Amino acid sequence: MTGFTCAIPGQNSDHIQLAHGGGGLLMHQLIERVFRPRFLSGEFTHDGALLDPGPGRLAFTTDSYVVRPLFFPGGDIGSLAVNGTINDLAMCGARPLYLSAAFILEEGLPISTLERVAASMQSAAAAAGVKLVTGDTKVVERGKGDGIYINTSGIGVVPAHLTINPSQIRAGDTILLSGDIARHGIAVMAAREGLAFEPAIESDTAALAVPVQALIAAGIEIHCLRDPTRGGPATTLAELAGSAGLEITINERAIPISPPVRGACEILGLDPLYVANEGRFLAFVPAHHAPAALKILQNFNPTAAIIGETAAGKPQVILQGLIGGKRVLDMMAGEQLPRIC
Amino acid sequence: MTGFTCAIPGQNSDHIQLAHGGGGLLMHQLIERVFRPRFLSGEFTHDGALLDPGPGRLAFTTDSYVVRPLFFPGGDIGSLAVNGTINDLAMCGARPLYLSAAFILEEGLPISTLERVAASMQSAAAAAGVKLVTGDTKVVERGKGDGIYINTSGIGVVPAHLTINPSQIRAGDTILLSGDIARHGIAVMAAREGLAFEPAIESDTAALAVPVQALIAAGIEIHCLRDPTRGGPATTLAELAGSAGLEITINERAIPISPPVRGACEILGLDPLYVANEGRFLAFVPAHHAPAALKILQNFNPTAAIIGETAAGKPQVILQGLIGGKRVLDMMAGEQLPRIC
Repeated sequence: MTGFTCAIPGQNSDHIQLAHGGGGLLMHQLIERVFRPRFLSGEFTHDGALLDPGPGRLAFTTDSYVVRPLFFPGGDIGSLAVNGTINDLAMCGARPLYLSAAFILEEGLPISTLERVAASMQSAAAAAGVKLVTGDTKVVERGKGDGIYINTSGIGVVPAHLTINPSQIRAGDTILLSGDIARHGIAVMAAREGLAFEPAIESDTAALAVPVQALIAAGIEIHCLRDPTRGGPATTLAELAGSAGLEITINERAIPISPPVRGACEILGLDPLYVANEGRFLAFVPAHHAPAALKILQNFNPTAAIIGETAAGKPQVILQGLIGGKRVLDMMAGEQLPRIC
Repeated sequence: MTGFTCAIPGQNSDHIQLAHGGGGLLMHQLIERVFRPRFLSGEFTHDGALLDPGPGRLAFTTDSYVVRPLFFPGGDIGSLAVNGTINDLAMCGARPLYLSAAFILEEGLPISTLERVAASMQSAAAAAGVKLVTGDTKVVERGKGDGIYINTSGIGVVPAHLTINPSQIRAGDTILLSGDIARHGIAVMAAREGLAFEPAIESDTAALAVPVQALIAAGIEIHCLRDPTRGGPATTLAELAGSAGLEITINERAIPISPPVRGACEILGLDPLYVANEGRFLAFVPAHHAPAALKILQNFNPTAAIIGETAAGKPQVILQGLIGGKRVLDMMAGEQLPRIC
C-alpha cells in the first residue's frame, strides 16, 4: 500500500541510499550508527536542542562547506566545518558553545566515509570545547551532489563589555597576523591536483577561539578580528579598509610565509596574499597594545607577526613591497581556487 | 599576478559563476544585490549576528532543504526553508526569533531565480515575525549541485515552565491533527512529474508557531508536538509510540484528507499517511484539554481533528480502519517520495 519507490532496507547497506534521507527507518538507523554515538549530548531533543548559554549577548553564525577533495593534508571537510564556524564566532569575540551539523549526502557515498568525517568533527569539537547539539540529514541523487556537503551553524556568547568589529578600527591601529599564511589553499589545491610537495604542505585548519580568549583575558583592547579565509588576507584587508574608511599599509617583508608554501605559490602562479587560510586571523589593536598582543600570539604560533597599520586616508590597502615599491591590493575579483572550504 | 583561474567579473552576469562563492568582489556584489536588501537587519555583522533573545531556554535547530523542483504549487524552496525551521522550533514550544540562511548554488543558476527564492524567504520570515540575521554563499560546479540547496538554522526561546517532548506523553492522551494531510508531498510530486490535478493541489507549507503559541496562551497542557514531515503521520506516530513506550490508536475515519488529495494518492498508489506535510502538526494533550485545544486549532484550520489516543500497551501504532479492521502502522522503511523538502 505504501508504494515505496526506492531501495529496500538492508540492500547495499554500506552506501548511502536516497531513503537514508527520507525520514523513515533507514534514516533513523543511520543516525544511530553514525551520529548519535559521536555528537549528541544531553541537550539533544528530536528536531532541536534546548540550551542555556548563560549571560551575555548571543553570537550566531552559519557556514556551508563544499571543499573538494573531502580529505586533504592536515584536515578534512569535517574538521574544517567545525573549526570554520567556531572561528566566525571567535572573530566577534564570542566564546563558542554549540554547533549544529546538517549533511547533504550524495547517493552512493560509502557510509565509512561519512563515519570518518563524523569522527573528525567529534575530535575537532572536543578539542575546542564545543558541543554538537542538533543535526539534519538529506540525500540527493547521484550526480546532484559531490559526496558530502556540510552546514554548521554556531552559537556563542559575547561578554557585555566587548565590541569587536570593523567599526571599532581606528587610525593608528597596529595589525597583527596570528601565523604564516596560505597553507590551507595550497594543501587543498595540491590534494585536488595530485601534486606532492616535499615537505608536504598541511592545511592550517584550527579553532581560533583559544588564542582570541587569551588576548581578551590579558586585557588587550581588540578593535577588530578577522580570519582571512576565501580571498586571503588581501581581500579581507581591502574589505576592512572599506568598512573602516581608513588606509591600511602592509609590509610585505613582515608577512610570514613558510619557504615550502612560497615555493608552491611560485610554481602554481598564485599570490599567497589571495590564498585562503582556515586557522589564522588578523587583529587590529591600538599601537601601544601591539607588543603584548604579539607576545601572546607567538605563544600559540612563533610565526605570528606585526604586519601593518592603519592611517587616515583613502580607504585602500597599500602593500609596501620587498624592494621598496608600493602597490594597491584590491579585493579578489574572480576566483583563485574554487571550493577550498 | 593573482592567477585568477575563473570568470572575469561582468561576464555572464545574469548567472551564478564559481567566483560568486569565492569570497571576493563578485560575492560581495551578489550579497549586495540579492541578500542585503531582503534579509539583513540591525543585528547583522560580517560573519555572525549578535543577538539578545531575552529570558528563557534557547531552542536551536537546523535543516537543509533540497526540494526538487524549486517551485511547486503553494510554495518554493525559500518559503519551505523558512517555515520548516520555524516549525522545528515551534514543536519544542519555542517562540522562533532568528534564522540563518546558507546557500549552496550551482554554477549557471540564473540570478533571477535566486532573487525569487530570496524574496519568498523574506515574505515567509516577515509573516512569521522572524528575522533572517546571518548567511553564507557557496558555489559548486555545474553538475555538482541542483540549482539551489538552502540550510536554515533557527533560534527561539522556550519559557522556563514549558517542557514539550515525547517523554511527556502519558497513557490516555488525546491526539489532535491541525489540518488535512498529504498536500505537500502530492504538490511536489505533481510538479516534478508534470501532473496537473483539477483542482490544483497546493502544498500546505506554513509556519506553525502562531497556532502553537495560541494553544500555550490558552493554558492547554501540551505534552508533545510534532510536525509529520518526511515519512508522514504514520512514521512520526510510530517514532513517538516507540519513544513514549505507549500504544497509539488512530481512527482512520477521523483523519482529515481533502477529496482531491485522496484521489491523487489513489492514482499514484501512495498511502497518504506516509506522505510529507510541511504545515501540519500533531498535538498530544490530556483528554480533558482536547475539546478546548480542538476549538483553537479549528480557528486556524477548520479541518483540524481529534484523530486518536494513547494507552498503556505495546509501543506501536494501530490504525482502526474505515470498515472496522485494524492494522499496525510501521515507520516508513524505504522512501516514498525523495527530496520533498
